[in-house]
Amino acid sequence: MSRVIRIAAAQMGPTQKNDSREATLNRIIALLEKASDAGANLVVFPELAFTTFFPRWILDGQSLDSQFESAMPNPNVQPLFDRARELKIGFYIGYAEITPDNRRFNSSIMVDTKGNIVGKYRKVHLPGSVEPRPNAVYQQLEKRYFEYGDMGFPAFRGGKDLQDAIMGMLICNDRRWPEGWRCLALQGMELLCVGYNSAAYDPNGGESESAELRTFHAQLVVQANAYMNACWAVAVAKAGNEDGSGLIGGSCIVDPNGRIVAETKTLADEIAVADCDLDLCEQGKSKMFNFESHRRPHWYSRIVEQTGVGCVPETVAE
Amino acid sequence: MSRVIRIAAAQMGPTQKNDSREATLNRIIALLEKASDAGANLVVFPELAFTTFFPRWILDGQSLDSQFESAMPNPNVQPLFDRARELKIGFYIGYAEITPDNRRFNSSIMVDTKGNIVGKYRKVHLPGSVEPRPNAVYQQLEKRYFEYGDMGFPAFRGGKDLQDAIMGMLICNDRRWPEGWRCLALQGMELLCVGYNSAAYDPNGGESESAELRTFHAQLVVQANAYMNACWAVAVAKAGNEDGSGLIGGSCIVDPNGRIVAETKTLADEIAVADCDLDLCEQGKSKMFNFESHRRPHWYSRIVEQTGVGCVPETVAE
Repeated sequence: MSRVIRIAAAQMGPTQKNDSREATLNRIIALLEKASDAGANLVVFPELAFTTFFPRWILDGQSLDSQFESAMPNPNVQPLFDRARELKIGFYIGYAEITPDNRRFNSSIMVDTKGNIVGKYRKVHLPGSVEPRPNAVYQQLEKRYFEYGDMGFPAFRGGKDLQDAIMGMLICNDRRWPEGWRCLALQGMELLCVGYNSAAYDPNGGESESAELRTFHAQLVVQANAYMNACWAVAVAKAGNEDGSGLIGGSCIVDPNGRIVAETKTLADEIAVADCDLDLCEQGKSKMFNFESHRRPHWYSRIVEQTGVGCVPETVAE
Repeated sequence: MSRVIRIAAAQMGPTQKNDSREATLNRIIALLEKASDAGANLVVFPELAFTTFFPRWILDGQSLDSQFESAMPNPNVQPLFDRARELKIGFYIGYAEITPDNRRFNSSIMVDTKGNIVGKYRKVHLPGSVEPRPNAVYQQLEKRYFEYGDMGFPAFRGGKDLQDAIMGMLICNDRRWPEGWRCLALQGMELLCVGYNSAAYDPNGGESESAELRTFHAQLVVQANAYMNACWAVAVAKAGNEDGSGLIGGSCIVDPNGRIVAETKTLADEIAVADCDLDLCEQGKSKMFNFESHRRPHWYSRIVEQTGVGCVPETVAE
């Protein structure tokens, strides 16, 4: 027996602030069609896929509101939903969500092969700041524009055409926090999808880690957390130079052994495709990472009882 | 400012069941002296360093008891403590512990440069089984011979000669469980030491992952957890062929960026040395992994409220 989903990581190149929503949607649909031509059943798009990474700008009023989706789907994005249903292909996509009562989240949805939304997630680990950095050209204002996700880490099923996979979603910075992965794996997760926009360098010219090191970090956390949770993982970038601010690429599909089985090579619109057999999760889930046999939650209480570092041991007297 | 400790990962080659305790201790002391010659202030030895990996055998009575240390130090190991104090070198070492009331643990200690025990740990994540596998030549009986560690994950200071480092210890399988790393990092850990004995293949000839893949797994988890907890990590194997059962090597020293800065090349007694500047933890601890700013413990409750997989989402009706 095997339960194979052919998955495409649909990396997007940069989206400039002044690009039209329609032009960006057309790029997304073109990637979807390319994935379909490659036989994919599921396509994973980046975080905030319909717009530029707008938290780098100080925005308000209409210039901010126009970045958000007030329903999913909505007329602006309907052509993507229609085309995906025609092609019988499921997808993960990230977007800025505004609710009817004006709450705002950095969100993602999973759409099954029939066009139904089967999963929704709101980003828990928001980086950046509420207040703008004075005199900086580029900001990171996620904590200003979004509330912290209020749904926790819900796993869900992808439906029959996607092998009834138990799926989980994260968004960007979430992937660096093993807590989120573990909460999903404790619900049996077999496939984790995560889109991201991650800086390639400090766009304000400060001392900075190289793009190479940042790409290494981005892949390392996905590889290790996939292994430690015995699941497949698909991590997908929006990449390249957005209005002078660089984003890393390095989109990849990772197996339950933590090995990269497909990855993008550019910083542009590009797909990477792999056949992901969900049954390969079984070895890890039943042996090395058999949670029931090996976890000792009694000793993990600090993880939920404190937020920051506390109780640092005292300096030894000499 | 920088706070550099020169650390030696002191990998041990195999120790056969019939090797004398004295011969093994002499190898440990020889590695200590080699590390001292290389200018190291701290040496990290493997798990169960004084003996073969005895949980692979069905033992009882004196053949089992002789694997355990009833005090630390004790006359059998005193020459190691004496030589380390002479050389002003600290060390981590793993051993089988038996308490005065006959409780048994898979333990490690950290000894400072003056010969004082400044940290102690008892392995929480015991692999293996209580009952022997029928008809198997080689067993994994850690759950039979040891109790689960009862100390949690205590961080401690290494003392002035070791830069007042905030240290944590894990043992072998523990390193694959991000919960333990996080509990230590929540106490400010700057340096994690872990010794291991990890199988290179199924010694009973079952279907098996390759030694190469197992070594990749062993390094991957150390690299990612060091990065995600913004700490240095030193992971040290007992390696090679013990009485027909193979152990991986791959001992390594990992920086807070998750990069391997030194590693062993053989499956024999060998040291790998690196200068570890504890101040390099600061970037991660204050920015990307600033726990106080970014963790959301409210959403992590599954980690402590359940042991195994629970609440798997229901299959979608079609």
